[in-house]
Amino acid sequence: MASAPKANAVVGQSGGPTAVINASLVGVIEEACKCAQIDGLHGSLHAVEGIVKERFIDLKRLGKGELDLLVQSPSSALGSSRDKPDKDYCQRIFEVFRRRNVRYFFYIGGNDSANTLYIINAMAQQVGYDLRAFHIPKTIDNDLLVTDHCPGFGSAAKFVACALMGDDLDNRALPGVKIDVIMGRHAGFLTAASVLGKQRDDDGPHLVYVPERPVSVDRFLADVEAVYKALGRCVVAVSEGICDTDGVTWAKKITQTSETDAHGNIQLSGTGALADYLAAQVKARLGIKRVRADTFGYLQRSFAGLQSPVDVQEARECGRQAVRYALERQSGSVAIKRIGNGDRYAVEYFCTDLANVAEKTKSLPAEYINQQGNGVTAGFVEYARPLTGPLPKTIYLGNYPTI
Amino acid sequence: MASAPKANAVVGQSGGPTAVINASLVGVIEEACKCAQIDGLHGSLHAVEGIVKERFIDLKRLGKGELDLLVQSPSSALGSSRDKPDKDYCQRIFEVFRRRNVRYFFYIGGNDSANTLYIINAMAQQVGYDLRAFHIPKTIDNDLLVTDHCPGFGSAAKFVACALMGDDLDNRALPGVKIDVIMGRHAGFLTAASVLGKQRDDDGPHLVYVPERPVSVDRFLADVEAVYKALGRCVVAVSEGICDTDGVTWAKKITQTSETDAHGNIQLSGTGALADYLAAQVKARLGIKRVRADTFGYLQRSFAGLQSPVDVQEARECGRQAVRYALERQSGSVAIKRIGNGDRYAVEYFCTDLANVAEKTKSLPAEYINQQGNGVTAGFVEYARPLTGPLPKTIYLGNYPTI
Repeated sequence: MASAPKANAVVGQSGGPTAVINASLVGVIEEACKCAQIDGLHGSLHAVEGIVKERFIDLKRLGKGELDLLVQSPSSALGSSRDKPDKDYCQRIFEVFRRRNVRYFFYIGGNDSANTLYIINAMAQQVGYDLRAFHIPKTIDNDLLVTDHCPGFGSAAKFVACALMGDDLDNRALPGVKIDVIMGRHAGFLTAASVLGKQRDDDGPHLVYVPERPVSVDRFLADVEAVYKALGRCVVAVSEGICDTDGVTWAKKITQTSETDAHGNIQLSGTGALADYLAAQVKARLGIKRVRADTFGYLQRSFAGLQSPVDVQEARECGRQAVRYALERQSGSVAIKRIGNGDRYAVEYFCTDLANVAEKTKSLPAEYINQQGNGVTAGFVEYARPLTGPLPKTIYLGNYPTI
Repeated sequence: MASAPKANAVVGQSGGPTAVINASLVGVIEEACKCAQIDGLHGSLHAVEGIVKERFIDLKRLGKGELDLLVQSPSSALGSSRDKPDKDYCQRIFEVFRRRNVRYFFYIGGNDSANTLYIINAMAQQVGYDLRAFHIPKTIDNDLLVTDHCPGFGSAAKFVACALMGDDLDNRALPGVKIDVIMGRHAGFLTAASVLGKQRDDDGPHLVYVPERPVSVDRFLADVEAVYKALGRCVVAVSEGICDTDGVTWAKKITQTSETDAHGNIQLSGTGALADYLAAQVKARLGIKRVRADTFGYLQRSFAGLQSPVDVQEARECGRQAVRYALERQSGSVAIKRIGNGDRYAVEYFCTDLANVAEKTKSLPAEYINQQGNGVTAGFVEYARPLTGPLPKTIYLGNYPTI
């Protein structure tokens, strides 16, 4: 293939924000600043929208202090979008790219964003426009194919784990049933992460339900009742995308109006309806008085000051790698390969074709879900534990011998 | 008065847990271990319940490692209770105290807990039982009288501030209306703390509603519409205890069944109903498409690993002080006096009568609420800012000049 052109680059951030999507942006900026082929680095405001509206900022002008702040800032500092470009939209993107001599396009996002990039890249090839298009993975759902895990997941997993650690201690202090609804439309990784802070045998969450394993309300209630009878309390982690045995999400069944975005995704977060429904069922049918339910909502992806250090470092490195790959090949998606685990956790990076990632979804593997479909396995903990960084240790005195 | 008896002590934790209630417990243990008058230090499991059921653990046996863990563990490590002792309940407490030669009683809790202590103390005096009864303040609501602020508030305020910082950046990335419902049945301190992380003029929350200032749905919607028109987005912080102009809480108006505890408090947390109601109103009546609402729930008081360092230190010191006061006087409640602010923030401790704290509630002072009743003043920020410890700094690039 032809050598890398000397031209301008555009970088954008798309889809739902994460705690480390800005670390990936910093990685792109750092590497682009070192790279003679990349003249200007334009940050597109609000993803593809910023390209067609020509709302760019000059990222090479950011100083070290600004980059240091950017690494630790949650959410997408360039703004985001859920627009899904069609052919006409892509034509407008090319017009802008041509006029501004943009030959490098870096897009940080999930599988919908990889698909946007895939479409733009395909159209560029159709019209013979020399564009180098690279996807940098990010998603708290951890549901991209090929890569071992996704930047953004580790920090969200840390949030969920710390939340459950505290919530379980709260539930020990004032016992009852506590239900926590966690993000995850199709993939149960984040809900599974609720177990990562467990230290004692009887620590919660005692039950974990993921979208990959349909469960009936009756079965759910029987599980809760069994734990409550055994322990006098019960902490439950439930994915927002949990399905009934007929495959229909509980959220859909209990919600009259469903809001969908341009990608056809139903809005599950930002509402407490599922949590309230489950709590009401437990109260009414099991006759348990103290039942509480929280929906973690947007805090999971954007809480300030709670990044996983390993997640930050990997997100940043994914950004750097994308720029390096762009000097060597025409397009691709940055992926992470795990080459050591546990105390010797280590990764390396590689490039996979956009088609391998675009619009595809990875589920929580069957071996990470227990036989009964109401918990996760030691294999999952082994997989996810290195990604959150160290979690706080706690103590509870209620089990100490009485005098 | 008589000199301090040489006898056993009981300590309990009551009411809703906080992130630093265990730090107060550690303070009591540390000081009691230094104190020749206190023989055994019994930790009562689940507050007053643990006394009448004689479920005590020996706190003097805890090692340094356990105390270090205890300081950083959220929630009440001894367990809690919401029992409100009546005369008969108190008689049973005395029987246990007599049999075990307990002459010191330390109780860590809010105004309901102070009242419990007040009742027990009054009965002890009636029957001529020599008991030294001390209340150690704790509440995320920050609603106790006399004390400048309450241990537990600073850490909860830090959680809320960090949550809003991230949430506001998330709302910049994907603009719309975001409503966050924050704990606070009667007092608006914690909801007001949502502003503490604001760095830029247009940072959210843009609107803050506290229980102290009734507001109609119409007024609320007009405020949201005005901000949305000006900024293209709007982040709102609302107390769970917000009232309509007739003085009835919105939560009560929209909830058919109200669960109350032994103290007559309505359950406001652990349900997303208020948030969902407000979001539905904004969607339906303002015609804004992207509207999200989160209810922070129990995470605010028990999240693991997010303590305010100053809150930890003060909570611990309140525990120590209670033991010191118990050697000098018969009863009281530990209180904090601020003797310096801002960069020179400093406090000292004093003892006030139980009657000054028991069952009384402090509201957010009028000078901390803005004229319109939809925001807080610089005075509040000055008051609350030292209590959270340092908050993370962030950057957003969407306001940078375009090229």
